[in-house]
Amino acid sequence: MAFVVSLGAHPGRSGRVCMSADQNGKDAPILLRAARGELVERPPVWLMRQAGRYMEAFREYSDKYSFRHRSETPEIAIELSLQPWRAFQTDGVIMFSDILTPLPAIGIEFDMVRGVGPRISNPVRSFEDLQNVTAASSFNPERDLSFVGTTLNALRDETAGKTTLLGFVGCPWTLAAYSMEGKGDKNLMKTKKILFSQPDVAHQLLDTLADVISKYIIYQIEQGAQVVQLFDSWAHHLSPEQYEKFSLPYTAKVVTTVKAWLSETGRSVPLIFFANGCGGKLELIKHALQGKVDVIQVDWSVNIADARERLGPEFVIQGNVDPLTLLGAETVIKDTVTKCCEDAGRRHILNLGHGVVQGTPESAVDLFCQTARNLKYAEVVEKLGKQ
Amino acid sequence: MAFVVSLGAHPGRSGRVCMSADQNGKDAPILLRAARGELVERPPVWLMRQAGRYMEAFREYSDKYSFRHRSETPEIAIELSLQPWRAFQTDGVIMFSDILTPLPAIGIEFDMVRGVGPRISNPVRSFEDLQNVTAASSFNPERDLSFVGTTLNALRDETAGKTTLLGFVGCPWTLAAYSMEGKGDKNLMKTKKILFSQPDVAHQLLDTLADVISKYIIYQIEQGAQVVQLFDSWAHHLSPEQYEKFSLPYTAKVVTTVKAWLSETGRSVPLIFFANGCGGKLELIKHALQGKVDVIQVDWSVNIADARERLGPEFVIQGNVDPLTLLGAETVIKDTVTKCCEDAGRRHILNLGHGVVQGTPESAVDLFCQTARNLKYAEVVEKLGKQ
Repeated sequence: MAFVVSLGAHPGRSGRVCMSADQNGKDAPILLRAARGELVERPPVWLMRQAGRYMEAFREYSDKYSFRHRSETPEIAIELSLQPWRAFQTDGVIMFSDILTPLPAIGIEFDMVRGVGPRISNPVRSFEDLQNVTAASSFNPERDLSFVGTTLNALRDETAGKTTLLGFVGCPWTLAAYSMEGKGDKNLMKTKKILFSQPDVAHQLLDTLADVISKYIIYQIEQGAQVVQLFDSWAHHLSPEQYEKFSLPYTAKVVTTVKAWLSETGRSVPLIFFANGCGGKLELIKHALQGKVDVIQVDWSVNIADARERLGPEFVIQGNVDPLTLLGAETVIKDTVTKCCEDAGRRHILNLGHGVVQGTPESAVDLFCQTARNLKYAEVVEKLGKQ
Repeated sequence: MAFVVSLGAHPGRSGRVCMSADQNGKDAPILLRAARGELVERPPVWLMRQAGRYMEAFREYSDKYSFRHRSETPEIAIELSLQPWRAFQTDGVIMFSDILTPLPAIGIEFDMVRGVGPRISNPVRSFEDLQNVTAASSFNPERDLSFVGTTLNALRDETAGKTTLLGFVGCPWTLAAYSMEGKGDKNLMKTKKILFSQPDVAHQLLDTLADVISKYIIYQIEQGAQVVQLFDSWAHHLSPEQYEKFSLPYTAKVVTTVKAWLSETGRSVPLIFFANGCGGKLELIKHALQGKVDVIQVDWSVNIADARERLGPEFVIQGNVDPLTLLGAETVIKDTVTKCCEDAGRRHILNLGHGVVQGTPESAVDLFCQTARNLKYAEVVEKLGKQ
């Protein structure tokens, strides 16, 4: 099991500029090329939450160490990030971390309680609580989240030219809701009370988080991330009207800032956006994020062909197989993957419609990836008579 | 508190034929007229899960009696059904019951565990288990669910001409999934394993349930229900493709059977269909249920104007205010209700987009209902320049 990674020297804030730039050509790995909108030869494949307890190799660590220890100790985070790539040859390696990881760096403390989920010890529910949140201008990921930088640098060295390295963040709404609610909850009663009676508290927190997350994405890119996914995991808690008010403007602020920085520094780093429960919101998302994100990940509540129609031709689409399909018979897995890729057409990155579920057989994840690798768009086009 | 209801004599299987028939005219209550597609003067209003622990009067019963005792003892079920009508003058009274209520009558035993939810002691997961499920032909609601008949008859007497009496059932998919899973679950792993490796077990159970539910709806109508809502509460667990396979055909079978019976017996009883998480499925629902159900209830993940556009003009639309809005300031409640009704246009029944949440202030439910009662379509039309 012991896969030893030499961490080497920390290359510092601008250490990755050249390496990022030189992955612009045809030699770039397939997921990176597809995320940039290039027409590739087959659907690239990775899985949300691909590092997890469903893997025996992962459980050797999760049984021993707490979540925060695992995700904040580079040696362990690196090993856990690489496991699914070694086992299934995924086209992407996503750093092992959590969307809540940056919160302690701005004074919002959390712990991950086994079998329960995250608990925030000092939730933000008033203007007074907001006083204790670090201003975005003082947020310093290089100082306070250096373990993320170390992890990304080492992963980039391990994977260079062979697979695509993904960083990720939570969207302002999702992080704000966690910070207000203090924990996962079916209804978000505490958060919604704030939205509907003291909306200015929410807006101030959202605005701070938008600036913090922008800086954090830029830091991840500087440290080696080739693609960054933004997770709006709690999008489903909001109606379309609420989503237009409390989420999309802040995500738009983040991606506008990041894209401006990418443009200034001459980098090409695609951004993927995922809103959980997006079925009623695709038109809003299209309108708010067109030209600002490159890829839209859709959950499995939507047919991917309908998603393509509703989102228009501009975005690459990622998704969207029901994760529970991986509990099914081999033919069900193969047929579902093939149908998803055929329905999606080209400019598609195969993924699940949500994270891998604990209890999924490793052999099923392997088959999921293999099926994508064996597809050839040339044959799909011939079969369906379409591009 | 003691609201005494005289149960009177049980009117028997056909006791309600005349009463149903005589509610066809302009004297019928507003919700019934709207559900039939008539143009009414303002949006009728009721709330899903309007009888519940958020009401102090309800807690006097729920603190003392188990769920099954409450829902299967007519005196209590009647009182609990009437409480929200007395408190908020809702335009509908829905019988206090549960979608799982008919399961024991076909050999599937359940109990409601406080704070946990339903637990089924003999889940159906194989052809062998199916042997223990009563055939639909032997399902006898008059004998095994007479408490439902008694409750509906008494409610009809109490409400006659003053408000609309609603019955309800769970859809075949939702009841089958509960029966296979054995309990509520985030992922339905056990159920999906069956769908994806022994689909014939699921299909056989679904087909039996479709016949059972058809008979159960007919029984509810014979006993006094003026409108019946079908809840596909677990629709969100299925992708659109899965939904077309494992849910819609069986719901279509139910409503086709019931509509044929209504037509034969000369009755006009509108059916309302609710699929939880319907955002990615509205076109499928339209296609499968057009001409077969009268009203589509939409959850709050969809904008109600978009829902109208996607569903076309034929259905009445019910919904879809975020239940958590009722935790907000008065102006937020009023504005949200008004906007929902304006966006929906006419042929709309105001409701929440999901059930009332425990912890909702009774005053907010009252304001929700009042706001609808104070709206006048004549003024809305003038304001918006539309029908």
